[in-house]
Amino acid sequence: MPLMKSWVESANSADCPFPLNNLPYGVFSIAEAEPHCGVAIGDRILDVTAAEAEGLVALTDMPLFDVPFWNELMEEGPAVWAALRDRLIALLSDGAAERDKVEPLLVPMAEAELHMPFAVSEYTDFYAGKNHAVNVGTMFRGAENALPPNWLHIPIGYNGRASSVVVSGTEVRRPWGQLKGPNDEKPRFAPCARFDIELEMGAIVGTPSDGPITVQEADDHIFGYVLLNDWSARDIQAWEYQPLGPFQAKATATTISPWIVTKAALEPFRTDTPAREVELLDHIKDCGPMLYNIELEVTLAPEGQAETTIARTNYKQMYYSAAQQLAHHTTSGCPMNAGDLLGSGTISGPTKPERGSLLELSWGGKEPVELKSGGTRTFIEDNDTLTLKGAARGAGYTIGFGDCVGKVLPALDDPYARG
Amino acid sequence: MPLMKSWVESANSADCPFPLNNLPYGVFSIAEAEPHCGVAIGDRILDVTAAEAEGLVALTDMPLFDVPFWNELMEEGPAVWAALRDRLIALLSDGAAERDKVEPLLVPMAEAELHMPFAVSEYTDFYAGKNHAVNVGTMFRGAENALPPNWLHIPIGYNGRASSVVVSGTEVRRPWGQLKGPNDEKPRFAPCARFDIELEMGAIVGTPSDGPITVQEADDHIFGYVLLNDWSARDIQAWEYQPLGPFQAKATATTISPWIVTKAALEPFRTDTPAREVELLDHIKDCGPMLYNIELEVTLAPEGQAETTIARTNYKQMYYSAAQQLAHHTTSGCPMNAGDLLGSGTISGPTKPERGSLLELSWGGKEPVELKSGGTRTFIEDNDTLTLKGAARGAGYTIGFGDCVGKVLPALDDPYARG
Repeated sequence: MPLMKSWVESANSADCPFPLNNLPYGVFSIAEAEPHCGVAIGDRILDVTAAEAEGLVALTDMPLFDVPFWNELMEEGPAVWAALRDRLIALLSDGAAERDKVEPLLVPMAEAELHMPFAVSEYTDFYAGKNHAVNVGTMFRGAENALPPNWLHIPIGYNGRASSVVVSGTEVRRPWGQLKGPNDEKPRFAPCARFDIELEMGAIVGTPSDGPITVQEADDHIFGYVLLNDWSARDIQAWEYQPLGPFQAKATATTISPWIVTKAALEPFRTDTPAREVELLDHIKDCGPMLYNIELEVTLAPEGQAETTIARTNYKQMYYSAAQQLAHHTTSGCPMNAGDLLGSGTISGPTKPERGSLLELSWGGKEPVELKSGGTRTFIEDNDTLTLKGAARGAGYTIGFGDCVGKVLPALDDPYARG
Repeated sequence: MPLMKSWVESANSADCPFPLNNLPYGVFSIAEAEPHCGVAIGDRILDVTAAEAEGLVALTDMPLFDVPFWNELMEEGPAVWAALRDRLIALLSDGAAERDKVEPLLVPMAEAELHMPFAVSEYTDFYAGKNHAVNVGTMFRGAENALPPNWLHIPIGYNGRASSVVVSGTEVRRPWGQLKGPNDEKPRFAPCARFDIELEMGAIVGTPSDGPITVQEADDHIFGYVLLNDWSARDIQAWEYQPLGPFQAKATATTISPWIVTKAALEPFRTDTPAREVELLDHIKDCGPMLYNIELEVTLAPEGQAETTIARTNYKQMYYSAAQQLAHHTTSGCPMNAGDLLGSGTISGPTKPERGSLLELSWGGKEPVELKSGGTRTFIEDNDTLTLKGAARGAGYTIGFGDCVGKVLPALDDPYARG
């Protein structure tokens, strides 16, 4: 598919992340105004709440965009998702008849504050990237026991904390937690010393379900994708995670990129999951190309200094697709709702510069990562800014997500002091 | 504290679970009417939604009970919680001046259908009963490694699935899942063969928080308690839970009792957590009696047969209080919201008949439990009804929760068949 031309000129360059092919969904506000639903086009945002109020977008009897989140559209299902995309393309295409009515509803993206694009119903995080699982398993259990016995048979996942999901730009406070090193006699309560990122993609469930669904149905139920940084306190995790999994180590924050990129926009970039090393059971087999070719990058910038790209990889490195993860999630009959967020698990490629966490990049802190601005990192230091970037590159156009940014503030001196 | 007398005569007997001392909060409907908020008193329910509409209950400028859940009251905080209780006691006490206005708002509990009493924001399950942890650890890891190294230092918890929480009376369908026995060559997808209960108490967070809170603050934030059955697919759990904890094994359903028993009603039954075997760090120390003396019982009834009491224990057997669990939950800065539900973890006493799961009662299936109606059980069989019961017994009165009941339906022949 080539670039689709828009009358919004800034959307027509090959490296603009928001061409007409993309049309991702977000929530924005300008100055003191209430947050509205918006669609990114070039360097503008189309105010969809206003477009609906003026009758330019009329998909259903009841308004969908009078709330500052996209969950109401999700609930409508794939036919309405497609109808909205068709309508937006018609309004924004080069030569559109209604350009005069639409143009006043565009606002400059540079002036907008972006908010959470959807209300997170529940958040599940997976562990479904094989290179990451092998790296972490090798560090913690040795190369021979790197992959748990179940790893090649199910996408391992655990429930995360929806209340901790924040939008790009939200500052993240280094947490306190209970820590005990292998040689410490007793645990202590102290600030996390091994605070880390996890480079992930987040899949957003659009269609509710109330029983087991197939992988094809699961793919149909997914509304779109975001970049996702699953901030991880490695020292808290090491002490707490046996036997029932990560808990407080993952509860400080999870940051997502501000724009929901729809499945329709990603359609040309579909790709197969890698060859299976062990045949999967039928209910969890991919039935088509359900991964995506999305280039991913992580940068780290110390305060006031230039950023260094510390990792580059690709979403197609995943072993399990989001559709497989969602299908597995429903096997028990677990009810799924619009706005459920599924983290892919950390995405690492096979070589060292492709690793999606500092834990892997610094090999547990033993091999510091060099920064362009001077200095090194094993884990995140105070006031570092970490950014995830993602782009699917087509012939003459780019599908971008908007950066997924978080600055890490120092831990509080006394976390129980009330300000 | 003695029995408080009500003009609702049925509330004044020593074994009535809903005397004036209790006043638990639920949501009910009669015939085809919309669900309303209600308070149990004797064998009646006071329609609080109607009482508010008629001006008999007026706590805030905006109505709190025009929705079929109690979250709006929770959000108001402890002063309003106390004001409501005072007002209800005034309206329902023996000799109340407004009896004539209140009496028409009472409906017979026997005719009411009970619904979820609150909207579950997120659900966390703990593993904080020591006898249970030792029993399970001994079965899975041997007596010498029964307790994980962190167990005596933190209340171990994991995030559960809020969408799977249902009210007492909801039938539970035996799930399918991926299973692999220790001697199986490969996993298979099949109905769960080791479906189990977990006898727990659920604590409901009323006051939101957005950073670490102390144990005393945590106790202040708790709105009330319910009985909680954390249905568990032991064979699914055995295969999936390493390394990131239980996932689909716990996602079929969690059943709660229909009435939220307030902290105020339980106040006379406060008791200390057991002596610490290892001193806790300061931030997680109990600072007063924060457990409760609540007698608990589990019954099992095969279809059409009498029930057998298979376990009797007490909430005071817990090692960690709900306040300690909530305080630990916030150490990372994890935001908590009104309607968050915290499962205590399985409550087992020190002797065999006090064990709160069939896994423990049958010692992993090796020691079948005898039923009064004939036959035995290792795990739940199709069409068995499992019931949790709870009561705090005061001088001449009882604080009841309402039974927490679930019947287990057979697994579907084909979970992917669409009806």
